[in-house]
Amino acid sequence: MKTVFTNAVILIGAGNWRPIENGYIAIDGDRIMEIGSGPYLGAADSIHDMSGKLILPGLYNMHSHTPMSILRGVGTGLALQQWLFECMFPLEAKMNAEDMRIGCRLAIAEMLSGGVVSFSDMYHYPADYVQEIIDAGIKANVSFPIMEENPTGSQAHDSRFNLSVEFVRAFDESAGGRLKADFGIHAEYTNTPESMERYARVCQEMNGRMHLHLSETAAEHDRCKQRYGKTPARLFADLGVFENPTIAAHCVFAEPEDIELFREKGVSPIHNPSSNMKLGSGLMPIRAMLDAGVRLTIGTDSSASNNNQNLFEEIHLAAMIHCGFHRDATVIRAEELLDMATINGAIAQGRPDCGALKAGYKADLIAVDLRRPHLIPNHDTAALLVYSAQASDVVLTMVDGRIVYEDGRLLTIDCEKMAADADASLRRVFSVDVASAG
Amino acid sequence: MKTVFTNAVILIGAGNWRPIENGYIAIDGDRIMEIGSGPYLGAADSIHDMSGKLILPGLYNMHSHTPMSILRGVGTGLALQQWLFECMFPLEAKMNAEDMRIGCRLAIAEMLSGGVVSFSDMYHYPADYVQEIIDAGIKANVSFPIMEENPTGSQAHDSRFNLSVEFVRAFDESAGGRLKADFGIHAEYTNTPESMERYARVCQEMNGRMHLHLSETAAEHDRCKQRYGKTPARLFADLGVFENPTIAAHCVFAEPEDIELFREKGVSPIHNPSSNMKLGSGLMPIRAMLDAGVRLTIGTDSSASNNNQNLFEEIHLAAMIHCGFHRDATVIRAEELLDMATINGAIAQGRPDCGALKAGYKADLIAVDLRRPHLIPNHDTAALLVYSAQASDVVLTMVDGRIVYEDGRLLTIDCEKMAADADASLRRVFSVDVASAG
Repeated sequence: MKTVFTNAVILIGAGNWRPIENGYIAIDGDRIMEIGSGPYLGAADSIHDMSGKLILPGLYNMHSHTPMSILRGVGTGLALQQWLFECMFPLEAKMNAEDMRIGCRLAIAEMLSGGVVSFSDMYHYPADYVQEIIDAGIKANVSFPIMEENPTGSQAHDSRFNLSVEFVRAFDESAGGRLKADFGIHAEYTNTPESMERYARVCQEMNGRMHLHLSETAAEHDRCKQRYGKTPARLFADLGVFENPTIAAHCVFAEPEDIELFREKGVSPIHNPSSNMKLGSGLMPIRAMLDAGVRLTIGTDSSASNNNQNLFEEIHLAAMIHCGFHRDATVIRAEELLDMATINGAIAQGRPDCGALKAGYKADLIAVDLRRPHLIPNHDTAALLVYSAQASDVVLTMVDGRIVYEDGRLLTIDCEKMAADADASLRRVFSVDVASAG
Repeated sequence: MKTVFTNAVILIGAGNWRPIENGYIAIDGDRIMEIGSGPYLGAADSIHDMSGKLILPGLYNMHSHTPMSILRGVGTGLALQQWLFECMFPLEAKMNAEDMRIGCRLAIAEMLSGGVVSFSDMYHYPADYVQEIIDAGIKANVSFPIMEENPTGSQAHDSRFNLSVEFVRAFDESAGGRLKADFGIHAEYTNTPESMERYARVCQEMNGRMHLHLSETAAEHDRCKQRYGKTPARLFADLGVFENPTIAAHCVFAEPEDIELFREKGVSPIHNPSSNMKLGSGLMPIRAMLDAGVRLTIGTDSSASNNNQNLFEEIHLAAMIHCGFHRDATVIRAEELLDMATINGAIAQGRPDCGALKAGYKADLIAVDLRRPHLIPNHDTAALLVYSAQASDVVLTMVDGRIVYEDGRLLTIDCEKMAADADASLRRVFSVDVASAG
């Protein structure tokens, strides 16, 4: 099956954000065969005229907890600790497998319609919901994090440690490689050094990848230094965690030595601007990381602390806050943000043939309708994407050569059923009677 | 002509953001006749079933320079002074009346499709483009600002002063009151105290309203204090400017005494979070203003420094940055932001019967589709609008009882013609040969 998109403006990505005008892109099966400009002269099973549209690599949402989408908007306006302990943990304890599936499906629906082709997820008992990922046709790296002070109290620690490793064994490289299973450490403050060290060793033995939270709040960062005499980054490094390819969410309070560690160990920090702003956590030292040559990525965090899965919004917000905080319009360039949201995510997820539009790469791409009033005129395509475009300007999302979203329609998700299922879940989770929560 | 919307979730606004479930709203001509919940039992010419939709007051974009939409994205990443003097002023000097009309039309198209029912504009020679406002069916307060150091150099000052006053005489309260003409002072640093004082007196004699820039950057604020020994706000007050109902864009560096002046004189500061962040200007002291009882409003600024006219984005950004900067998730409430974007704007524009959904008020309203994946579930409607919703979730915009946007279609603007006209303008303005710029 050979599909060709013609007459498009094309952005290759991977550092190259200069538009190719009147471009074509030919796809065979799940891979890109050829990119060029001018008329396409080869054979094709299906030709899409993309006049007035921009094609670029699909986006990577590098940090989420997708099942929490059913908790969207709960506890808005509370500070992190109160929000976590008074709202999130009690409600999460009431969520069953079906609720997690619905939350994950809502998140995927939003991501695919907003141009996200792959995400990195971290949540309890993900084996219960990964079928949603397989069915929806999106890519994902999912982790079942170890967390000794598990607030749901529903599993003993050893069992959880083993379940986490079993999850990797069962699901890594499934669905034709679309689904990867990562190792996960919730955070240094919810685990003992001994178990983190042991877990990191297992990860290394299995050639795994690691997903964790790091220095999200000042309190957490400072408590770690008090407890261990070192920063969370240094602690993880000393425990051998960073011997594995690691993505580290937040890193708001990363110190210069931590940033040097990230560079040295190839750790990919994940910037979550909405979550960090909304919860009042603080501002990641993004410029220092970029200058140090650290591979920066970007994510939404969960819809409970964001409150959506809109990566265009994150890119825009990142551009805004760093210039605003530093009172310097030159702090970050549009092209750097687009790399963070595409190729850097692909590399950090262990997908070396994804994240850019190149011959031989996986056909993971999105199309943006440039004829919307707020995208006219287009003086600078990279700036247009970062400062003017909206997730809703995405009119086509393709993953592994398969169109999963087109012109407002999700082709792999039944949205009416999803809304009805969400209603049922909400009645369960938010029932006053805990006994009836299922 | 009596139109009724039924089965909607309704937000009244004006401090009341608790949803009315299963609500109806009856409109006769340009005014709201009745709001209630349950079945609507009266007569109607047209009944719209709004199941799954939220109806709320239309939004007020309180600061823009709409003709600059044709300069969208130019000079992205430059600091304010360089951006202004090297990009904006030379290009603006090349814009003719037709270019301004196209820019204004692009901005209106974006605003109506994103739920904005009224805007406050400030630009050179607005008589050349106000017909766009009249034709599009949107509301606007437009000002022709005095600006002695007029960088376009195309008019002598006295002529400009008189043209500004003439503009008010010619256009205030036109188009059935939809179009109002305001007085405008570009800024204290582009005018002499003498002319500002004289202009303020004329404004007062004519019962006018004033629109100006105030303390946008630290440099501008500090230079004023050096030059006059007082802040811009105090200078304006001493010159009698604040004896008129005044909207003041930016106020980033307003000092406590300035805030007290705003309260005392009824000045309405306009928060422009995107512009202030993007240009690296700084952060408005929004909490101090709210605590002082100042009437705060919100705007986009021009698409050259934003780069769009998306008020949902501004509301979201305002929520994010203030919590993030102050590391406090409780700095601003969703309800406060919604008041800023609706009723406060209406009052500041001199529209006492607008900005809320109440019997007898003008029928200026918008509908949001709550069935989008990112708006499920809805635990808190005000938070949903601020933190999850997008401008593209607006499916209906009504101004003075007339539907001007519905389900992706602008009913008063020919978008294909607009795109073609924009192309022609761009070729003129960005031509290398200045002589051919028209």
